[in-house]
Amino acid sequence: MRMVDLINKKKHAEALSAAEIDYIIQGYTKGDIPDYQMSAFLMAVYFKGMNKEEIANLTLSIVNSGETVDLSMIEGIKVDKHSSGGVGDKMSLVIIPLCACVGIPVAKMSGRGLGHTGGTIDKLESIEGFKTEISKEDFINNVNRYKMAIVGQSPNLTPADKKIYALRDVTGTVDSIPLIASSIMSKKIASGCDCIVLDVKVGSGAFMKSVDEAVILAKTMVEIGESLGRKTVAVVTDMSQPLGHEVGNANEVKEAIEILKGYGAEDETTVALTIASRMAVLGGAFSDYESAYTQMRKLIESGEAVEKLKELIRIQGGNPEVVDNPNLLPQARKHIEIKSLTAGYVNSIDAEDIGVSAMLLGAGRKTRDDSIDFSAGITMIKKVGDWVDEGDTLCILHTNISDCRDAEELSQNAFVIKDNKPEPIKYVHCIID
Amino acid sequence: MRMVDLINKKKHAEALSAAEIDYIIQGYTKGDIPDYQMSAFLMAVYFKGMNKEEIANLTLSIVNSGETVDLSMIEGIKVDKHSSGGVGDKMSLVIIPLCACVGIPVAKMSGRGLGHTGGTIDKLESIEGFKTEISKEDFINNVNRYKMAIVGQSPNLTPADKKIYALRDVTGTVDSIPLIASSIMSKKIASGCDCIVLDVKVGSGAFMKSVDEAVILAKTMVEIGESLGRKTVAVVTDMSQPLGHEVGNANEVKEAIEILKGYGAEDETTVALTIASRMAVLGGAFSDYESAYTQMRKLIESGEAVEKLKELIRIQGGNPEVVDNPNLLPQARKHIEIKSLTAGYVNSIDAEDIGVSAMLLGAGRKTRDDSIDFSAGITMIKKVGDWVDEGDTLCILHTNISDCRDAEELSQNAFVIKDNKPEPIKYVHCIID
Repeated sequence: MRMVDLINKKKHAEALSAAEIDYIIQGYTKGDIPDYQMSAFLMAVYFKGMNKEEIANLTLSIVNSGETVDLSMIEGIKVDKHSSGGVGDKMSLVIIPLCACVGIPVAKMSGRGLGHTGGTIDKLESIEGFKTEISKEDFINNVNRYKMAIVGQSPNLTPADKKIYALRDVTGTVDSIPLIASSIMSKKIASGCDCIVLDVKVGSGAFMKSVDEAVILAKTMVEIGESLGRKTVAVVTDMSQPLGHEVGNANEVKEAIEILKGYGAEDETTVALTIASRMAVLGGAFSDYESAYTQMRKLIESGEAVEKLKELIRIQGGNPEVVDNPNLLPQARKHIEIKSLTAGYVNSIDAEDIGVSAMLLGAGRKTRDDSIDFSAGITMIKKVGDWVDEGDTLCILHTNISDCRDAEELSQNAFVIKDNKPEPIKYVHCIID
Repeated sequence: MRMVDLINKKKHAEALSAAEIDYIIQGYTKGDIPDYQMSAFLMAVYFKGMNKEEIANLTLSIVNSGETVDLSMIEGIKVDKHSSGGVGDKMSLVIIPLCACVGIPVAKMSGRGLGHTGGTIDKLESIEGFKTEISKEDFINNVNRYKMAIVGQSPNLTPADKKIYALRDVTGTVDSIPLIASSIMSKKIASGCDCIVLDVKVGSGAFMKSVDEAVILAKTMVEIGESLGRKTVAVVTDMSQPLGHEVGNANEVKEAIEILKGYGAEDETTVALTIASRMAVLGGAFSDYESAYTQMRKLIESGEAVEKLKELIRIQGGNPEVVDNPNLLPQARKHIEIKSLTAGYVNSIDAEDIGVSAMLLGAGRKTRDDSIDFSAGITMIKKVGDWVDEGDTLCILHTNISDCRDAEELSQNAFVIKDNKPEPIKYVHCIID
């Protein structure tokens, strides 16, 4: 087999066999195939796509490029969730306790944030003492005993994905559905779960800017899951504005506690319950979504859900008192109110701009090596559909940085205020299973 | 400027500015832009093409990546010719003396052969003593005095083209009209000529397999020439079978002598006179093609044309006696007749297969470092349209290699013999100016 022939085959829109795809993926991972051939191939995939079978084979090859996690020691059906990434997305912090409450084992492997999107591991580390590096033994024991545990992603999973992603990033080949779908699904499958619920975000803060695109990505990922024997459901949810009211690390932990106490914003409570109820059904705890949804809402109202979060924090070495007293979480020294320059209805809030602002305030990383200020972030006072008078506070920036005019300008401009009241935003656009 | 943004721009079919194209070409030549970004860009060009202006700017950037030849010391309008490459193509050996005879200065820079196609420099070196490395001074003096000189291409011309071509070869991005056209034209323009006649070959032995493709390539190159101030004409000629009767180095010199003596095969005599007459008009020696064609045919009949070739050989240090006694050229020890296995009309002869056979016999190079056996080659006894009986000789292989069964089989199979008489082949498909 010669890589140049496989590039030409894809260039002429021919389907590649499982063996051909595996030759490319393993060859590239090992360094036998050079970057310059791989990038030409990826560009050909961008233009000519891949069929269902090719995408499943691609995913499997990426899984096989590295270690896979063996979760067979965990009792029950292991259900994982994945979010395609957004701004203010603290859903995992809410969903893990909810699922654990109904007996679904959640063996969660999570990532760190990069650019304008946050990562669950960073958020949890804003809790004093919380350890996200725990032994495999403790991880499995905790899931069996408490039905939940969270750990940073092993660096040895899907090395092909890491290498390919780094190349796509600099060669204009990021925005290809087969490549995005196989990248996400390979990581989930290598993590050893039985079923997957995908939260595909759509809107200004998400990678997918239109519902149509998001639905194609969602369907592609569900097909991969089914092809590779993992029951998979995708929920397409809104990211046209930041989710909830808090963006940042400690900030988002605080808001997750509020949601679990029953005081959460409607958008994120709906999204969290939708995803958690799907997971509960896939995991066999309920036979229908409505009962799961209702029961989980009751767990919030009864206080059991937030107690489960407290338990998660405790078993992973964190200070559980933050749940009763969120002021124990890191606090920024400086708080800047961004005021409206005009009166009208908030028509839109550019979520990516808010995410980048939060990053500039210290809440995120520009590059993988940057450190994070857990206390930095943004509180959204107004959201899409709200009326504002001139001079009303739109959002509050929290930071320890002295000069943050860039972030101030960016967050100011993120708000579009007009005379007309906009259409209400759908929190959940559709569900694909 | 960031390369990834320019890749995305081309990916989305946007036109690049002259500055953007130059950033890519000079950056890549210097090594500031890595291979993996360049190959992704080239694949995007393959799919999305380039407009007329972009192609001209690309060509100019490639010219500017290295040295250019200054021919201003040569009197008159310098007309160059270029062939897109074929099998048995000894046209330059015929055209140089013809143009010099009518007073057109021919300052020819030529290449060596690779794969199934030959190179003029190799062919001339089969003449004992012929020097193709001559000083710039001698080169210019000879053109001024004798109206002709030939030299190997300077290695310092168009370094961008060499680097890009090597990358295209291994990344499936060879077959792109903007890339082929700019590659050819940049070399011609860097060589310092005022006008260009392009011989675009079409058929089984050429890169372009259909007349439609060849016409698009020809038009694109003519447009580049016009955009960059070089009067350019393209002649689309047949390469569906080897040109003439001889393939190889000494072999082709022998046949070029025959053509200049008036005994050439009809196909190559027609092609040579068509190209030479276009060059003569561009160079201002004639006002119309017909007079040029007629006059050049007379120069063949009168013996002046072949005397001019003798002069070229003499001034470049070669033994001019080969013109009167072609047996002085290198001769192979072994001659193998390939016989027809059936009776019928020759319907086609795969020119690439014949070219590869000749290479296997020693006449060509598989890689740039291979050496050449000047005496090796193939004599085509039968051509398309000829009747053959079973056992008739189709062609004769000349070689010094002991085991050449591969070449025997390949040349045998190159001939397709059927009951029906095929349509006559057009030697010149069309002319674009």
